[in-house]
Amino acid sequence: MDLRTGLPVVGMVGAGQLARMTHQAAIPLGQSVRLLADSVDDGAALVAHDVVVGDYRSLADLRAFAPGCDVVTFDHEHVPNEHLRALEADGVNVQPGSAALRYAQDKQAMRERLTELGVPCPRWAPVPDAAALDAFAERVGWPLVLKATRGGYDGKGVWVVGTALDAAAVIASGTPLIAEEKVEIVRELAADVARSPFGQGAVWPVVETVQRDGICVEVLAPAPDLDEELAERAQALALRIAAELGVTGVLAVELFQTSARPGDEHGGLVVNELAMRPHNSAHWTIEGSCTSQFEQHLRAVLDYPLGATTPTAPWTVMVNLLGGPDGVTPALDERIHHLMAHWPEVKLHLYGKTFRPGRKVGHVTACGADLELVRRRAAGAADYLMNGGEL
Amino acid sequence: MDLRTGLPVVGMVGAGQLARMTHQAAIPLGQSVRLLADSVDDGAALVAHDVVVGDYRSLADLRAFAPGCDVVTFDHEHVPNEHLRALEADGVNVQPGSAALRYAQDKQAMRERLTELGVPCPRWAPVPDAAALDAFAERVGWPLVLKATRGGYDGKGVWVVGTALDAAAVIASGTPLIAEEKVEIVRELAADVARSPFGQGAVWPVVETVQRDGICVEVLAPAPDLDEELAERAQALALRIAAELGVTGVLAVELFQTSARPGDEHGGLVVNELAMRPHNSAHWTIEGSCTSQFEQHLRAVLDYPLGATTPTAPWTVMVNLLGGPDGVTPALDERIHHLMAHWPEVKLHLYGKTFRPGRKVGHVTACGADLELVRRRAAGAADYLMNGGEL
Repeated sequence: MDLRTGLPVVGMVGAGQLARMTHQAAIPLGQSVRLLADSVDDGAALVAHDVVVGDYRSLADLRAFAPGCDVVTFDHEHVPNEHLRALEADGVNVQPGSAALRYAQDKQAMRERLTELGVPCPRWAPVPDAAALDAFAERVGWPLVLKATRGGYDGKGVWVVGTALDAAAVIASGTPLIAEEKVEIVRELAADVARSPFGQGAVWPVVETVQRDGICVEVLAPAPDLDEELAERAQALALRIAAELGVTGVLAVELFQTSARPGDEHGGLVVNELAMRPHNSAHWTIEGSCTSQFEQHLRAVLDYPLGATTPTAPWTVMVNLLGGPDGVTPALDERIHHLMAHWPEVKLHLYGKTFRPGRKVGHVTACGADLELVRRRAAGAADYLMNGGEL
Repeated sequence: MDLRTGLPVVGMVGAGQLARMTHQAAIPLGQSVRLLADSVDDGAALVAHDVVVGDYRSLADLRAFAPGCDVVTFDHEHVPNEHLRALEADGVNVQPGSAALRYAQDKQAMRERLTELGVPCPRWAPVPDAAALDAFAERVGWPLVLKATRGGYDGKGVWVVGTALDAAAVIASGTPLIAEEKVEIVRELAADVARSPFGQGAVWPVVETVQRDGICVEVLAPAPDLDEELAERAQALALRIAAELGVTGVLAVELFQTSARPGDEHGGLVVNELAMRPHNSAHWTIEGSCTSQFEQHLRAVLDYPLGATTPTAPWTVMVNLLGGPDGVTPALDERIHHLMAHWPEVKLHLYGKTFRPGRKVGHVTACGADLELVRRRAAGAADYLMNGGEL
């Protein structure tokens, strides 16, 4: 409890862009997020008041950070689960808790649990050795997807392998793996929800996420031409996963939309990944929803009632800013000038990161009634800011 | 220039709620506002990274603060004008500049200049002594309004006096004064605009400001039933004042709407006050406009192109949170719970201030298509949060 304001204190482990945007959302709630940052130069550390530098892999650092926080939450899933359990044993209010986070940290545990729950997943198998993979390949055919059970994100830790020989190289690295069938997808969707410890759930419209090289580049909200019943099915699935896994805060359920096989009770939806924190697929909610995912995450982990998720516009499109080549001209500040002059209705979000080729350094959002226009604006602004050139 | 981000650095003198909300708006622009705060407990100082504690009345403190800022701007108008001129002589980029700010600091200078420009004002006169007031009263009649030429805000520094005897007490205090006729008003409006050093202007819809005891309690955006021509006249007037006075950043023009006398080319509009900074009458723009006044102020003082001011909803209503009596129950945190449960679509803005009776500690905003519903929600939420009780 902050004795001056009479309000609870939220601690967040990690100080990247998710923490940066969470701090931004915390300000109107009368809050100031307390951060455990890797470095004083982290995106959120540059804009927040209460910053502790420490190592999220060190239980000592976590234990030094937690006192004074009414709740501890996360901008990534990389805190070792045994440390989370130790904090809980100390009496720290960890949201989401270790029991839920386990399923966002370990893909094998996630697949086992979702399969138990009857949640639609790609066919999958653990890969303790090459023989296990061969047996699985015999069942589902090549190519296959190998995933590191831990630590992957943005296409890292995922390998599409066409032959046993390709797979052998990945297995030889010693990384614990699972194998999944390579699903034929129509497109990728995300069902983003929030859940509080009290058990209240809230859901945003299902979105389409457009990926390139395993990285989300564009999000369309809502997913265009998505059958209403299928959208509701995806939302119900995400809420059910949140409840069954005991997730608190924001849960992003990344889905594959596939051609439904006859008799498929899930309408062709397949769960790809889970994230238990604010997620790129819901950045559009900052402008596009009555309650942004960052405010909702704070409300949820504080066990406050959740906010309305009504869209503010018929269409909202978010495009990630992925660093362009070195030596882009004109200089960044001049590109911002031109962006603002050319696209006065596009909203810019910079994460306080130095630009490097391919690095996610921000995003832009546009809202409106005409999807094609909104897409063009967001994509045009993002492309210009990253790659410069003539307008 | 922040060498790490390649972006210019904005310094803001003052660290109250306007600076707090400006910092919030700065984060997505890749900025982190540098603050000159009176105290580490100031609302903005609690949430920002780069805070210098110092006295805005001390030229030495201002001179220590300014280096490293690409532009220096303000969350209040109280920095002595001679200090602003000294900073400008040092080569500091001060926005708005001393020449413009003079008219927000000195009501006599403001009235003289606006009168010169043919801007509609109440009839007014300087009050060097009681005789001058008597002569003015003879011309316009009692009651009259006396205003301290400097330092007034939120009803402070304004006296409505019914007789020469009442006025004598105010004059005896030695405060430099002007006198204004007490205008018969239909209602109060505000025309909020922004202007950049380059000369670009942008304007939000004209709003109605509802006052109680000289303090704004509610803002209705746009002003209901306002004649479109009159609205455009108010906007054009505000843009003209911004240009003629050389204002940069946000300019709030507080207006009286009066019954237009025959032949009045201004349609009954009369300018009451000017503020050259983000202003309470435009807090609604955080949710209600594509570009909030805080982002627009930053764009303007940075000489960036201005953002679109398209409304996000047909109606937006803002209600100020003015501290209720001592001993309100239940406790604040519990009241926030109930507010969020009862009004999930109302947006809360707390300023990080301790609650005291009558103190402006935050505001709430509601948007929607039904003005009466939106007003009821905002007013209900504000009343409950300040006064507690049963729901």
